[in-house]
Amino acid sequence: MIRPTFRLAGWCKIILGGLAGAALVSGSPWPTRGSQQAAQRPLAEKFWPSEFGADDQRGAANRITPAKVTSAARLVNKGQIYQLGRLYEHGMPIPGKRHFSLTIPGLPTSPPTGSNKMVSNDELFSGEIGQVGTQFDGLGHVGVRLGGEDYFYNGNKLSEFGDTYGLKKLGVENVGVLFTRGILLDVCATLGKDRLPAGYVISPDELAACLKNANLEIQEGDVLLIRTGHGKLWMKDNPAYAAGEPGIGLAAAKFLTDRKVSLIGADTWAIEAVPHERADLAFPVHQWDLTKNGVYHLENLDLEQLAADGVHEFCFVFSPLRLKGATGSPGNPIAIR
Amino acid sequence: MIRPTFRLAGWCKIILGGLAGAALVSGSPWPTRGSQQAAQRPLAEKFWPSEFGADDQRGAANRITPAKVTSAARLVNKGQIYQLGRLYEHGMPIPGKRHFSLTIPGLPTSPPTGSNKMVSNDELFSGEIGQVGTQFDGLGHVGVRLGGEDYFYNGNKLSEFGDTYGLKKLGVENVGVLFTRGILLDVCATLGKDRLPAGYVISPDELAACLKNANLEIQEGDVLLIRTGHGKLWMKDNPAYAAGEPGIGLAAAKFLTDRKVSLIGADTWAIEAVPHERADLAFPVHQWDLTKNGVYHLENLDLEQLAADGVHEFCFVFSPLRLKGATGSPGNPIAIR
Amino acid sequence: MIRPTFRLAGWCKIILGGLAGAALVSGSPWPTRGSQQAAQRPLAEKFWPSEFGADDQRGAANRITPAKVTSAARLVNKGQIYQLGRLYEHGMPIPGKRHFSLTIPGLPTSPPTGSNKMVSNDELFSGEIGQVGTQFDGLGHVGVRLGGEDYFYNGNKLSEFGDTYGLKKLGVENVGVLFTRGILLDVCATLGKDRLPAGYVISPDELAACLKNANLEIQEGDVLLIRTGHGKLWMKDNPAYAAGEPGIGLAAAKFLTDRKVSLIGADTWAIEAVPHERADLAFPVHQWDLTKNGVYHLENLDLEQLAADGVHEFCFVFSPLRLKGATGSPGNPIAIR
Amino acid sequence: MIRPTFRLAGWCKIILGGLAGAALVSGSPWPTRGSQQAAQRPLAEKFWPSEFGADDQRGAANRITPAKVTSAARLVNKGQIYQLGRLYEHGMPIPGKRHFSLTIPGLPTSPPTGSNKMVSNDELFSGEIGQVGTQFDGLGHVGVRLGGEDYFYNGNKLSEFGDTYGLKKLGVENVGVLFTRGILLDVCATLGKDRLPAGYVISPDELAACLKNANLEIQEGDVLLIRTGHGKLWMKDNPAYAAGEPGIGLAAAKFLTDRKVSLIGADTWAIEAVPHERADLAFPVHQWDLTKNGVYHLENLDLEQLAADGVHEFCFVFSPLRLKGATGSPGNPIAIR
Repeated sequence: MIRPTFRLAGWCKIILGGLAGAALVSGSPWPTRGSQQAAQRPLAEKFWPSEFGADDQRGAANRITPAKVTSAARLVNKGQIYQLGRLYEHGMPIPGKRHFSLTIPGLPTSPPTGSNKMVSNDELFSGEIGQVGTQFDGLGHVGVRLGGEDYFYNGNKLSEFGDTYGLKKLGVENVGVLFTRGILLDVCATLGKDRLPAGYVISPDELAACLKNANLEIQEGDVLLIRTGHGKLWMKDNPAYAAGEPGIGLAAAKFLTDRKVSLIGADTWAIEAVPHERADLAFPVHQWDLTKNGVYHLENLDLEQLAADGVHEFCFVFSPLRLKGATGSPGNPIAIR
Repeated sequence: MIRPTFRLAGWCKIILGGLAGAALVSGSPWPTRGSQQAAQRPLAEKFWPSEFGADDQRGAANRITPAKVTSAARLVNKGQIYQLGRLYEHGMPIPGKRHFSLTIPGLPTSPPTGSNKMVSNDELFSGEIGQVGTQFDGLGHVGVRLGGEDYFYNGNKLSEFGDTYGLKKLGVENVGVLFTRGILLDVCATLGKDRLPAGYVISPDELAACLKNANLEIQEGDVLLIRTGHGKLWMKDNPAYAAGEPGIGLAAAKFLTDRKVSLIGADTWAIEAVPHERADLAFPVHQWDLTKNGVYHLENLDLEQLAADGVHEFCFVFSPLRLKGATGSPGNPIAIR
Repeated sequence: MIRPTFRLAGWCKIILGGLAGAALVSGSPWPTRGSQQAAQRPLAEKFWPSEFGADDQRGAANRITPAKVTSAARLVNKGQIYQLGRLYEHGMPIPGKRHFSLTIPGLPTSPPTGSNKMVSNDELFSGEIGQVGTQFDGLGHVGVRLGGEDYFYNGNKLSEFGDTYGLKKLGVENVGVLFTRGILLDVCATLGKDRLPAGYVISPDELAACLKNANLEIQEGDVLLIRTGHGKLWMKDNPAYAAGEPGIGLAAAKFLTDRKVSLIGADTWAIEAVPHERADLAFPVHQWDLTKNGVYHLENLDLEQLAADGVHEFCFVFSPLRLKGATGSPGNPIAIR
Repeated sequence: MIRPTFRLAGWCKIILGGLAGAALVSGSPWPTRGSQQAAQRPLAEKFWPSEFGADDQRGAANRITPAKVTSAARLVNKGQIYQLGRLYEHGMPIPGKRHFSLTIPGLPTSPPTGSNKMVSNDELFSGEIGQVGTQFDGLGHVGVRLGGEDYFYNGNKLSEFGDTYGLKKLGVENVGVLFTRGILLDVCATLGKDRLPAGYVISPDELAACLKNANLEIQEGDVLLIRTGHGKLWMKDNPAYAAGEPGIGLAAAKFLTDRKVSLIGADTWAIEAVPHERADLAFPVHQWDLTKNGVYHLENLDLEQLAADGVHEFCFVFSPLRLKGATGSPGNPIAIR
């Protein structure tokens, strides 16, 4: 997520137009608890230590206990696998100045060798690997600037853990594996819509309605996947896909984090509504989920087949690439029933 | 696998020294069945169509049926996950002229935005993504040149399916997900060794002994992971790790493909013994497994914890990145018990 | 040049629509001299050895003798330098699946070091470096397929000099430095136009008129820069810039190569008219100039200031990056008077 | 320059060992003029505005006036060109975690097109383009941290002009072209040595002796190229090349900047002696030349042929790539006589 372009796009000028005067009053970076500012900004108060301990780097992945793994495996009864990751391909929607390049050097890369005339091919990739296409946002992805410092999950300061060649803390290699129960929250079906419009803010009640429809309750450590229908635009109408999206706002995010989920995914590029619910806040759900609560995001998912088959509860598996010091990971998460 | 450097390295001159006279006699590219050449080279005869059909692009992944998935899930009883993928990091062994670069652009990549002062980081990756570090070899990776054409799995000609920006057939996006039963073949423990030496050729009998020790039999669609101890050198003695390796030869490869496995993995960079069993054949096991049989390879695995815990049978999950037209995939495969 | 996209673009379907039946009749790759085919295709006959010798890799750069260098330097009288290279920047027109990425890793890349608190920045570039933005086409860039082989300048076969990690012959490092006399052929001014339309084919007579207007004659080894006005679209209307261009055809190319120039440049992305004069020939001027005659191309130049100042004769300097085995080079060529 | 590795190398631990206690006393970032600290660190005092004006971004390139250009051109009498740039190639010395990758996608990149069967090749580059191989250090490359801010040439603050996708000020595109008089200071020949040892600190007197030997005086705007003989190690003994180098210290740097040169080059990777003259200062000559004086550096030059031919005065031309917002540039600078 976090599309640098959007700062330049038309509606963003509107969104961000009122921000100039909203800078933090200097002095103490932390407003007093209960102040008006605190109510408005997700990270207006000191937000650490994490409930998982002051040194924790795994966040809500800690909720996936061995018992949780075992019970998730028990959800596999038909042996049917759904690939939720999209193709990484030329022409997919990529925001701002990020890029994606995949080439085959040489074709074949290695010429015939040996009396067995072996030939082989490689592929060369260049791009913002954890932030193009289907992507997992790790805890080094989003933070908040307060008093001249950039604070991330568990109060880690970027000036201390940042490094040109990979973060020294909060790297995606710390996450481990997300093998847990997954739930599909089919919001657009529940609302009787084909596709929710950009900027539509999904409410907690709507999430609750989805759960009720599916006769499911959220349990600690679950992965929640939100279907908005926006994903139907992927590679069909990329400008519309990128221009905005429906999604949750802070209230629905709180609904989910209160229920101690481990990860929130969606068929959108940012999980949260864009344009945002409050024009002056940039991607506040990212801050709430990742920075404050250590709950991960998984974006640009393909949830259509799950929905078509009416699969609402499943074994979910995602194993991030162990890219040392990376802020995110590409991947092909799966749902199995 | 397939290290371009090795063509330059000292022992390779020896290996390949006798090849000049071994070029195929032109005319018909296919020697008559039963000829001496056919006996010597894994792909000396027309090797297609595949048993999975003349148009198949999934190879041995087809063996992972829904029933296989379900029974693999039943192997999860303790909820314990083993990450078999290594860290992708600067300084890891990389052959030839391939490279790995990971940087954080900007730090933070996006400056503070909104009244909530959101900051964010990306990571930029450049490298042969499916062929550095822990890597999955797809069916577009290895082929054979015969009569001026480069043939791959199922007789596909590179001149027809090759493309500068991603293969038009046999791309890794066709594989799907490997969710199946896994078996650890702990060869070095079975042989009472700490680590097998480079060039050691593992025999079919030794694989059978591993199975017997573990009281297991191979079933169709299984993933077999071969532990040689060579992986102990990773990031400890990288030159030794890269200079050669123990591994299977053609006989042991045939032992496994006869038993209809889906994938062979190892704690080495090429699965097969290097220097090779026969000096004139370059990576013949790759051709046998991938090109002829459609059986996948997974290299540079970390199998130490599995072995230390005595885990020989487990639920194995690997979901390749859906890189359109790629020859391989990075990843963090897992074993769960 | 050579935009893979154009194969996909609307008008290209028209251009290339009639090609299916035009494939070379197999058997001898070389049509008999004087055949109809020979008249139609620039490289229909054996086109080597080069006039510079059968082993030559420098092509028309050989025409720049020490005497030529000295006389070019004598053209510097005002000490005024014109930068003809465009900015390499995000958003510049890039064809097909090529890409351009420039980032600053870390910002600063190196944190404060020493008691003098030195900090430093690098930049990371990824892209088709010799084929994006202002670009120099070397002799490894364009060739012709005949009888199953790809032939390049001086009859070099790609199957022999091609290499995944840089060409073994004809690499841009062989060119040396182009320090010579330059001439501006201001075609659009001569024709009284602000900008020539896409597809406009500049004739030999029009080039001769430009020379006459400037009271100049071409001498061996000169660099000729053709101004069409198309460059005014750069970063102003990129889709129009990329969709086509005015330029020379085979007749004007022959006019220039007959006069033994060393390089032809233009304020366009391909020097030659697009759509092409003959719909069935793809970039025939490239083949004529580079492959047959060893005359270089320099594309995406900014010639506006030269024209505005009425500078038609000047000292021209371009020193390609010595990228070993590369097919081209980026650069900032200059004109000095 | 600025090799992140060296912080890790053996001798660097020694060099930097005493720095922990040397941090700036907080409060005012600027020590009082004449304090002991000021005498010890090149940028201990406020070092701006530049003599070229408070808004200047070109630094010492301003010294190359039209008259200077014209007189430099007059030095061309034999028409002999020396290429001072080295080959960019796999295996060249690259410090730290920077990388260089050059591949030919596809080979050919574009398959046969048109009835003329045109084929073409590109090259894909990935790497720290302005900081690998022969490299030009621009004014955005090196700065100093003082009081929490990173200050660069003319007092520009990185927090203000830094940008993830290219610097907003001091980018290399501002430099223009260096077409001026060049002087070879052949220090190793003057000292009767084949090659100066790593850590050798060249004195002002030694530079003066070189000038006297050549019967030359420095004039404003000249380019000075320092030959140490260290360049003989390039691609011959890369570890020795990278482990350290002879070069100037602050005194010789001041000798040159007092004489108002525009650029200092050398056959080394950092111009200045490594290990440094004073162990606690990291690359102080870089700060003196670039950050304070706006005098450019050009590193990893090949000066052997110039020296062999006894060429001490010449026309020098270097035209940096116009990479928008880049900190440096690759290139092939030339000397012509």
